[in-house]
Amino acid sequence: MASIDRTHEQGASSWVASANGHSEFPIQNLPFGIFVPPGGDEPRGGVAIGDQILDLAAILEAGLVTGPALAALVLASEATLNAFLASGSEPRQALRLALFDFLHVNAVARPEFLHAAAACTMRMPATVGDYTDFFAGIHHATNAGTIFRPENPLLPNYKYVPIGYHGRSSSIRPSGEPVRRPNGQRKLPAETAPTFGPARNLDIELELGAWVAGGNFLGQSIPIGKAASHIAGFCLLNDWSARDMQAWEYQPLGPFLAKNFATTISPWIVTVEAMAPFRAPQPKRPAEDPEPLPYLFDKTDQNEGALDIDLEVLLFSPKMRTEQQAPYCFSRGSALNLYWTIAQLIAHHTSGGCNLNPGDLLGTGTISTPDRTGLGCLMELTRNGLEPFTLSSGEVRKFLEDGDEIIIRGHARRDGFVSIGFGECRAEILPAF
Amino acid sequence: MASIDRTHEQGASSWVASANGHSEFPIQNLPFGIFVPPGGDEPRGGVAIGDQILDLAAILEAGLVTGPALAALVLASEATLNAFLASGSEPRQALRLALFDFLHVNAVARPEFLHAAAACTMRMPATVGDYTDFFAGIHHATNAGTIFRPENPLLPNYKYVPIGYHGRSSSIRPSGEPVRRPNGQRKLPAETAPTFGPARNLDIELELGAWVAGGNFLGQSIPIGKAASHIAGFCLLNDWSARDMQAWEYQPLGPFLAKNFATTISPWIVTVEAMAPFRAPQPKRPAEDPEPLPYLFDKTDQNEGALDIDLEVLLFSPKMRTEQQAPYCFSRGSALNLYWTIAQLIAHHTSGGCNLNPGDLLGTGTISTPDRTGLGCLMELTRNGLEPFTLSSGEVRKFLEDGDEIIIRGHARRDGFVSIGFGECRAEILPAF
Repeated sequence: MASIDRTHEQGASSWVASANGHSEFPIQNLPFGIFVPPGGDEPRGGVAIGDQILDLAAILEAGLVTGPALAALVLASEATLNAFLASGSEPRQALRLALFDFLHVNAVARPEFLHAAAACTMRMPATVGDYTDFFAGIHHATNAGTIFRPENPLLPNYKYVPIGYHGRSSSIRPSGEPVRRPNGQRKLPAETAPTFGPARNLDIELELGAWVAGGNFLGQSIPIGKAASHIAGFCLLNDWSARDMQAWEYQPLGPFLAKNFATTISPWIVTVEAMAPFRAPQPKRPAEDPEPLPYLFDKTDQNEGALDIDLEVLLFSPKMRTEQQAPYCFSRGSALNLYWTIAQLIAHHTSGGCNLNPGDLLGTGTISTPDRTGLGCLMELTRNGLEPFTLSSGEVRKFLEDGDEIIIRGHARRDGFVSIGFGECRAEILPAF
Repeated sequence: MASIDRTHEQGASSWVASANGHSEFPIQNLPFGIFVPPGGDEPRGGVAIGDQILDLAAILEAGLVTGPALAALVLASEATLNAFLASGSEPRQALRLALFDFLHVNAVARPEFLHAAAACTMRMPATVGDYTDFFAGIHHATNAGTIFRPENPLLPNYKYVPIGYHGRSSSIRPSGEPVRRPNGQRKLPAETAPTFGPARNLDIELELGAWVAGGNFLGQSIPIGKAASHIAGFCLLNDWSARDMQAWEYQPLGPFLAKNFATTISPWIVTVEAMAPFRAPQPKRPAEDPEPLPYLFDKTDQNEGALDIDLEVLLFSPKMRTEQQAPYCFSRGSALNLYWTIAQLIAHHTSGGCNLNPGDLLGTGTISTPDRTGLGCLMELTRNGLEPFTLSSGEVRKFLEDGDEIIIRGHARRDGFVSIGFGECRAEILPAF
């Protein structure tokens, strides 16, 4: 089992009352992010605690942290976390423990260093140099393949190659920023030529994101046994997808405009240290599946490389908003449905010498359950629009409509440990220009 | 015809003697780049002139430029050109004219501001936030398609959609940096399972690159009529490709490890102002081809959106090096073989709202001639290795061998104007680790 630090021992609590009980951000979590405090001051690093954000720049200025955590605090209070991510696990862990002590119920309460999270604006936690999106959700790959190639849903390379592609860095946005419906070329099978206009089949993709800590030099690979140490933490990710545009454009070079108009992430980096109690063995492959090639196989990774995170996706329609109904949850799944571990994604990505940099973001690919209770996109849920589904409001959807809001949530739970959450990955669809 | 500035009038010459005659960098060119001067000082902006580099930081420090060019000089002398690119065409043009006057044969010679280019090291001209590679060379698309789908070489979307995909920013390197042969999964059709090892079918792709000047906001498109003004200049680009890895991995999301181990560019940004005399009408589409959709059509762009650049690719083998033979040119083509203009690529890229940023790099895709004299990759030249070709040294190649060096050159020529060149895009293959 991954080393579990003292923040997870015996259900410690905080002098920040809202962190105790059922918060996504108890003192065991302490995720890092970049926020703008109320009043619009400069963006700076913060840590979520209950319904508050601890202002790292203010703590630094007050000289309240000393020792090995101080160097990390300097980096974590900057306007982006790239340098903090680059510094690796030891400084990160030193700062985590110092902040745990600072926020612990036995310490002196210092509310003057807190901001109400609801009054702050979250920014991207780091400048993403390169964003890579994988396809590691095998049930999604199978379901999507069944729609387009019923006789041959899973391609022959799938169980050998952690399939991935390069996504668009510039259009990744933190939770809360609306997403504009893209225009693009669409061609229905019955049409002889494409037309240009708003995407008709606007979809989501439920994914996890992984933030790269230290990178590697061009031409050198990261061996699977060291791959996990190159990840700083995780987030939720929505890989918005225009299915009608995708179907028309994706041959032969893959998705492009169908995906590059927006990617939404939850803004907090939930660290590998916070996730340590929630690691799990990689689920056994069916006996007929090939063994991973040696560069993708590591015993420790097989024993604890998976992430036991419950995931849910909710749709909040304008009607629900007006009538004060709750958002409708249409998917309850788990990150255990990934065919490849994050370490395998890192080892594969760098196996040919491609260099990763601190602040690079990896998406896992859409995560779906084997049954229909936790499908990660509407294309799967509605069989590409053929089987509309009914919301709690009585409304019907094939794909997203303007004004719809999508909310992804994630929680890690395990007996004997305080649960932690990821915060929301949320955005509303604006009509096309 | 695009507006042609006074640097192109009547064959002006420079007090830098090597710039006059047959230099790639006459006073009409004045491309911008980032270099490290001899002795390893800080990287800074420079302009190529003959076999010399004009040190912009030194000129700035000496206070030799005043007026509207000064603000641009401040930006162009930094360690990356991103801010200079962002400033747009007016400051760029003001600086270009000021440097033309400074270097003109009628001005006082100031050789103390020059460095011998051979003694300098070139760096990436800008930090590339996102790199996009297109597929706009229709003869390449047809040739490559013929190899894999003889009955259906050009897919139905090709003549409607400027096909593109996101490439890897982190592994783009300036000319001169060697490229390590990647390891990866390869599976021959006869094999039942893939193996992991050095790429066997290592290839090049001859492309042009275009540097983005000002960008656009997320959710807003750049109309085709304004697209050209969002480009600052051009370079040569080699999109190294491991064909055996590509064939195995590329379905369904496109190339990934087969391309992300390296991209090489010529390090000088040849500005749109330098290229103005060498614009050409976009070659007429065959009558049976569809008209571009309205968002891709602009009359001015059709009249002058193409680039009349002669391109050549040379292979320099270790044997040639040892025996002091010249590199062997196996491809002589032209950028007029692109099916889409750069403005069309920009308009398409942003049509769904994807935001471009200053310093983003666009590759055109492989440029091949309709006949076999100017093929842009070895896969086409050797029909995927089935028809090896013989070098001037008597050696035979299907794909690249370790120690082979590839040199791409580009020249723009037109009667009545001084020709300009791009400088080399060159790299040697190192053996896999």
